[in-house]
Amino acid sequence: MTRGKIHISKHCKGRGKYGYFSEETREYIITRPDTPTPWINYIGWGGFGGIVSNTGGGYSFYRDPRHRRVTRYRYNAIPADQPGRYIYLRDMETGDFWSPTWQPVKRSLDSYECHHGAGYTKIKSTYRGIESEVLYFVPPDAPCELWVLSLRNLENRPQKLRTFTYAEFSLPDAVTDQTNLDWGGQIARAEMRDGVIWVVSQAMPIDYFFASSVREVGFDTDRETFVGSYRDLSNPVVVERGEPSNSLASRGNVIGSLCHEIDMHPNAERRIVFILGSKEEGTDPGSIIGRYKSIAAVNKAFRELRNDWISYLNTLSVETPDSQMNAMLNVWNPIQCRATLYWSRFVSGYETGLGRGMGTRDSSQDTLGVAHSAPEHVRKTLEMLWKLQFLDGHAWHLVYPLTGEGASGLAAEKPDYPQWFSDDHLWLIFGTCNYLRETGDLDFLDLKVPYQDGSSESIWDHIGRAVKFTDTHRGIYGLPRIGFSDWNDTLQPDRGSGKAASVWTAMFFCRVMSDLSELCKYAGHDKEAKRYQDLREDMSARINKYAWDGAWYVRAYDDEGKVIGSHRETYQQISLNTQTWAVISGVAPPERAKIAMESAHRRLNTKYGFALMAPAYREYDPRIGGTTTYPPGAKENGGIFCHAHAWAIIAAAMLGWGDRAYTYYRQILPLVRNDDADLYGAEPYVYCQNILGPEHPGFGRGFNSWLTGTATWSYVAATQYILGVRPSHEGLVVDPCIPKGWSGFRVTRCFRGATYDIEVRNPDGVSRGVRSVTVDGKPLEGNVLPIFDDGKVHKVVVIMG
Amino acid sequence: MTRGKIHISKHCKGRGKYGYFSEETREYIITRPDTPTPWINYIGWGGFGGIVSNTGGGYSFYRDPRHRRVTRYRYNAIPADQPGRYIYLRDMETGDFWSPTWQPVKRSLDSYECHHGAGYTKIKSTYRGIESEVLYFVPPDAPCELWVLSLRNLENRPQKLRTFTYAEFSLPDAVTDQTNLDWGGQIARAEMRDGVIWVVSQAMPIDYFFASSVREVGFDTDRETFVGSYRDLSNPVVVERGEPSNSLASRGNVIGSLCHEIDMHPNAERRIVFILGSKEEGTDPGSIIGRYKSIAAVNKAFRELRNDWISYLNTLSVETPDSQMNAMLNVWNPIQCRATLYWSRFVSGYETGLGRGMGTRDSSQDTLGVAHSAPEHVRKTLEMLWKLQFLDGHAWHLVYPLTGEGASGLAAEKPDYPQWFSDDHLWLIFGTCNYLRETGDLDFLDLKVPYQDGSSESIWDHIGRAVKFTDTHRGIYGLPRIGFSDWNDTLQPDRGSGKAASVWTAMFFCRVMSDLSELCKYAGHDKEAKRYQDLREDMSARINKYAWDGAWYVRAYDDEGKVIGSHRETYQQISLNTQTWAVISGVAPPERAKIAMESAHRRLNTKYGFALMAPAYREYDPRIGGTTTYPPGAKENGGIFCHAHAWAIIAAAMLGWGDRAYTYYRQILPLVRNDDADLYGAEPYVYCQNILGPEHPGFGRGFNSWLTGTATWSYVAATQYILGVRPSHEGLVVDPCIPKGWSGFRVTRCFRGATYDIEVRNPDGVSRGVRSVTVDGKPLEGNVLPIFDDGKVHKVVVIMG
Repeated sequence: MTRGKIHISKHCKGRGKYGYFSEETREYIITRPDTPTPWINYIGWGGFGGIVSNTGGGYSFYRDPRHRRVTRYRYNAIPADQPGRYIYLRDMETGDFWSPTWQPVKRSLDSYECHHGAGYTKIKSTYRGIESEVLYFVPPDAPCELWVLSLRNLENRPQKLRTFTYAEFSLPDAVTDQTNLDWGGQIARAEMRDGVIWVVSQAMPIDYFFASSVREVGFDTDRETFVGSYRDLSNPVVVERGEPSNSLASRGNVIGSLCHEIDMHPNAERRIVFILGSKEEGTDPGSIIGRYKSIAAVNKAFRELRNDWISYLNTLSVETPDSQMNAMLNVWNPIQCRATLYWSRFVSGYETGLGRGMGTRDSSQDTLGVAHSAPEHVRKTLEMLWKLQFLDGHAWHLVYPLTGEGASGLAAEKPDYPQWFSDDHLWLIFGTCNYLRETGDLDFLDLKVPYQDGSSESIWDHIGRAVKFTDTHRGIYGLPRIGFSDWNDTLQPDRGSGKAASVWTAMFFCRVMSDLSELCKYAGHDKEAKRYQDLREDMSARINKYAWDGAWYVRAYDDEGKVIGSHRETYQQISLNTQTWAVISGVAPPERAKIAMESAHRRLNTKYGFALMAPAYREYDPRIGGTTTYPPGAKENGGIFCHAHAWAIIAAAMLGWGDRAYTYYRQILPLVRNDDADLYGAEPYVYCQNILGPEHPGFGRGFNSWLTGTATWSYVAATQYILGVRPSHEGLVVDPCIPKGWSGFRVTRCFRGATYDIEVRNPDGVSRGVRSVTVDGKPLEGNVLPIFDDGKVHKVVVIMG
Repeated sequence: MTRGKIHISKHCKGRGKYGYFSEETREYIITRPDTPTPWINYIGWGGFGGIVSNTGGGYSFYRDPRHRRVTRYRYNAIPADQPGRYIYLRDMETGDFWSPTWQPVKRSLDSYECHHGAGYTKIKSTYRGIESEVLYFVPPDAPCELWVLSLRNLENRPQKLRTFTYAEFSLPDAVTDQTNLDWGGQIARAEMRDGVIWVVSQAMPIDYFFASSVREVGFDTDRETFVGSYRDLSNPVVVERGEPSNSLASRGNVIGSLCHEIDMHPNAERRIVFILGSKEEGTDPGSIIGRYKSIAAVNKAFRELRNDWISYLNTLSVETPDSQMNAMLNVWNPIQCRATLYWSRFVSGYETGLGRGMGTRDSSQDTLGVAHSAPEHVRKTLEMLWKLQFLDGHAWHLVYPLTGEGASGLAAEKPDYPQWFSDDHLWLIFGTCNYLRETGDLDFLDLKVPYQDGSSESIWDHIGRAVKFTDTHRGIYGLPRIGFSDWNDTLQPDRGSGKAASVWTAMFFCRVMSDLSELCKYAGHDKEAKRYQDLREDMSARINKYAWDGAWYVRAYDDEGKVIGSHRETYQQISLNTQTWAVISGVAPPERAKIAMESAHRRLNTKYGFALMAPAYREYDPRIGGTTTYPPGAKENGGIFCHAHAWAIIAAAMLGWGDRAYTYYRQILPLVRNDDADLYGAEPYVYCQNILGPEHPGFGRGFNSWLTGTATWSYVAATQYILGVRPSHEGLVVDPCIPKGWSGFRVTRCFRGATYDIEVRNPDGVSRGVRSVTVDGKPLEGNVLPIFDDGKVHKVVVIMG
């Protein structure tokens, strides 16, 4: 492969029915507002921020959408995707009014474009001679968000407009806001001071504010006054009338509505900044509002945001022959990874921000895709998660970021079941080993971290307790007891007989023991290395002895010791995870590894990805639990679970199946579904958690986009297993496994304080194998690039063959 | 007073802006749809049923709105009061479509009337030559509800219509339905069998169905298909197009939409019955659907419903010079009492049916207003509530009716606070004594009922343990410790020092000891009677020694033993409850009783009722807790708490203040607010829980209508204390306390198996005092009418003087 601009396929450049990815701006640009579902974006850095859809729908929160919600959003309601961050525009001559974001007025706009970028969303539209742009973003240093409205008069005559904003405030406690109207409906009230609307209360732990950069002509803070009797957000009476009421909500529903009047000469441009924020301890809202009344400060904040994202995205970039792969790996996949780092599975267009908190298993995995690009945040996340551990070694299943309070999640709903999961504590080790391979920050292991029920110990000690928990909680055949469940939350066979066991957890344990053994060896703890290796060998032998079904590995054993995931069963004869992890863990001998993955391919792979298992259960089965609550083909009951699918990409690559790995990669690649948006439904720029499987009437439709382990694992699969550039304790490994048809690719990556500009050439059209490596022009023995830590760029050329 | 038709004031007959009470039909008739808030009604008997507003909004559930919700309702959303039980009508010639219930299409109707009756709602309207009526009710014997649509062609030309229904199904677990879209959005699906839409699932504990009496031309079960992209319920695409899609929801949001075509000759009438129900164990939906396809069966069911309600309402009727009082006491007050009997504080237009369950304190009180009219249900309710007791004597604060599971309610949100309330267990005794006075069913006391943490004992024993709990949980001065709180949930001073005490609970305890002592005496247990009397005397002395503030009784003591509700404080210098209960309990010596109630009158009474206390707290005070989370004048922080106001009526009557008692009674009488509906906001035919008080900008506005102890206590205040006809163990007491201007009144009442037709004459214009009584023409010594139990009507004439 010669360097130069790589080929751009028309798939990527071509516009889908609803939009396209722009390589120039790194934005996904939506070209019509009526997307099949709200196509959202995130603003903020895990503090103040929220979600914003392509029509301005969405809401804000501060650090924790459960305990510090700022504005409201009505999930799964009619009308859909409301409310949001709205600005009404009203022509004062004709009385006509519209939303520059289309919703909620939904007038037919003369033009419309939504630009979802990294950390910001910009919606541009024109309507009857007025061009408007609304930019939403969170400045880097203040608990607030900005809505920047820019208007231009395209007509050859003066125009007079009024603007009316709409932000509907929530009580900080989002559950109370939705369930306790008797109390919640009485406690909040509005105050208007110096052009700033304040939401205050004798009860709320925090006040909210809404302000603007320009003197308002009036305001409304009472929702019912603004909207009017039996009206809705498409026709609020105040906007229709054109006259704000200056209503002060003394209870009920408080909104932030400021009215501004704008006289525009032909071609005149005007800009108003709206500032929505919370009054945090240690912050001075007055100075924040003062600052962002200045356009210069707003521009500076936006530049800082752009720069932050550029430096985040630039830590790893690729050029491959597949432009959609490039777009995803260089832009949207890492954007999505950062969203999962911030919000785990807590808050999205599907996750209501009420109960899930940050998942122990989830967030541990979420660190994998950002260990190179956000190592300090990853360290903090791992520290927060290790604090969830108990002295016996297991960990809480989730944590609320505001309070640090842990909980057992789903298990709490079934108090008769075991309240621990067989994998949470092991993921902590897995994420930690990965972080250490990426950063070499071995000091982290000496950090003292408290237990939930005891004093502090080092991470080393925490790790030891985690291993011990699994070692001492065994089910049938000495395989790990499954507890409430394993990675598959909905596999719930354990009723306490002590027999129920997870074959997948056994495989995962083997992988974790390998990682740990490798770490110990590298750190010079040979005795521990040996011990973990022995644990691994013992478990591996058990798996191969007791869990091989003839053409694949079984999935688990139930509470009576009966097999799950075997050809001897009616449903779930084969399950994906124990085939992929047989490979990823190295447990399967080479021949079995291939047979298992061939079986998975034959029985489970479809055009849209791998079904998690087959056949799906046709009725509820208390022996299995949650899985069987879904209809056939949905979610864990034979749906395409994209997270698990990503493991199949890795397994295929580890087997050297370059073409298959790449085919699998593209099966769930969101941008591929850009041409298929009405069926797919979800955003074509981020991964879904699940796609309806072949046994479901809706086969191919995606759900639960944004917050899914698919983000991190697809990214890892593509960058570390297909492109094959992955960190190790000793250096950066280059071990590609690509389609034979590729003539090469390029990866530029930061690692241990240096940049590796890696060009991979595939002159012989192989899938795997590294013939030679040169670093800065000098030949290198092997395929592990050395650690430089010199702040420089090192040119690497790899010849496959 | 001579017999005959009593004077009807124009207040009652006169139409308010939104409607009027019809004496002819006993309905409240709403004459325009855009009421200030949704004005609702209940259908059902505590099994299948729900709430229905004047525009068809509302939802259904089966026995428990938390665990067995059937359809959805979006509380506090925009648009307001949606969805509901909707039927769209579409003119197939013009394509014009409308809602005969106004919402959700909101076309301007040519005429509109909503008739809320006892157990049913009927909405009549006309639009462009089509007269329609929709009647909603629940038949007496099946877990389903009926929507009966009647249409008439008023034009002199044939008309062709199509009808489209809309019922939006919920998951049975209403919390999950609203919070867990990831799971909830996948598990339900629709099936269409023989014209019946079924909502089925592998996960739901119950299936739902929607059917009709006439063959449909098509159907829709998928919400998104029916409504269409970015539309709402005012313009569903299927209705606009006029063609059902026959969509089968395979996941997502399932609706019941049947389409029928109707050809109508001039003046033709047509009727369709829609049947919405749940498939319960032991019921056969097929036969239920089959039955109600017959108009005759529907008419029969409706007649049975009417008869049931008539016999319920006829157990007590009055004729007084005040027609609004008559309307309330004869119709809407007992209707409201029955709603509280069924649903406590669980589910209304303000209570979301999620967390509150049936309250121990609440439901105990709710039995007071229905002991004469629904004694069997009261017995069952009391039995259910006694089961909530623990061996130490305290009781759970609430219970979920489906499961019988108890919970500590509000206290659970503050686990560091005491988890018991000082009054719950005492209300059980109070309600039981009242039930026994009404029914004489002393066998109830020997019923064996289990404890939450132990085996079964008789109600007698339960009572003993309840008394013991209070006797052994004392705060400062030997007054009852307040625990999490007393009747006022938001008064939370108890942090566990052992000092915090409730003066109100002390008074309440005295009253309960009186009742108990009286009961024991009547039952021949003289020793216990003496013991309870002694307990009372001791507590009464403590109150008078330690809680008299000079011109009123203080309210409580905080955790440091500091007084609450004293002139020495800045806020809450005087509290209503310890003045009213000083009288009701008999604790106050005559002089203090008058002074206390005079103080309450002077400091707390307003045009719209008594503020619960004054002055209101201006900021949050952790010493007090909940009360101080409200702004001044709202709810317990100086709002008008109607429940507590009703006690002031009783206290005034007990003091012989006939004019004041009556004035107080009318201050919160809903029908009085019919002329004031825009300010009052809530339904003018049922009581509110609270009205914003004089310290609030919204002074006079009512909230949280329907489910409030105000219903039962206002009813008791009016019938038993103003009209003065109240049960005792020995017979029916007649002891009126009326305005001097009244020349008399009449009460017809069932009691112990006979009917008492009581005519009270007030020739001398006194407020109180019975000069003579004749029963069936014979003079009676004293004012206690004897127990007849002969199924006959006994004519009683009482001469006051």
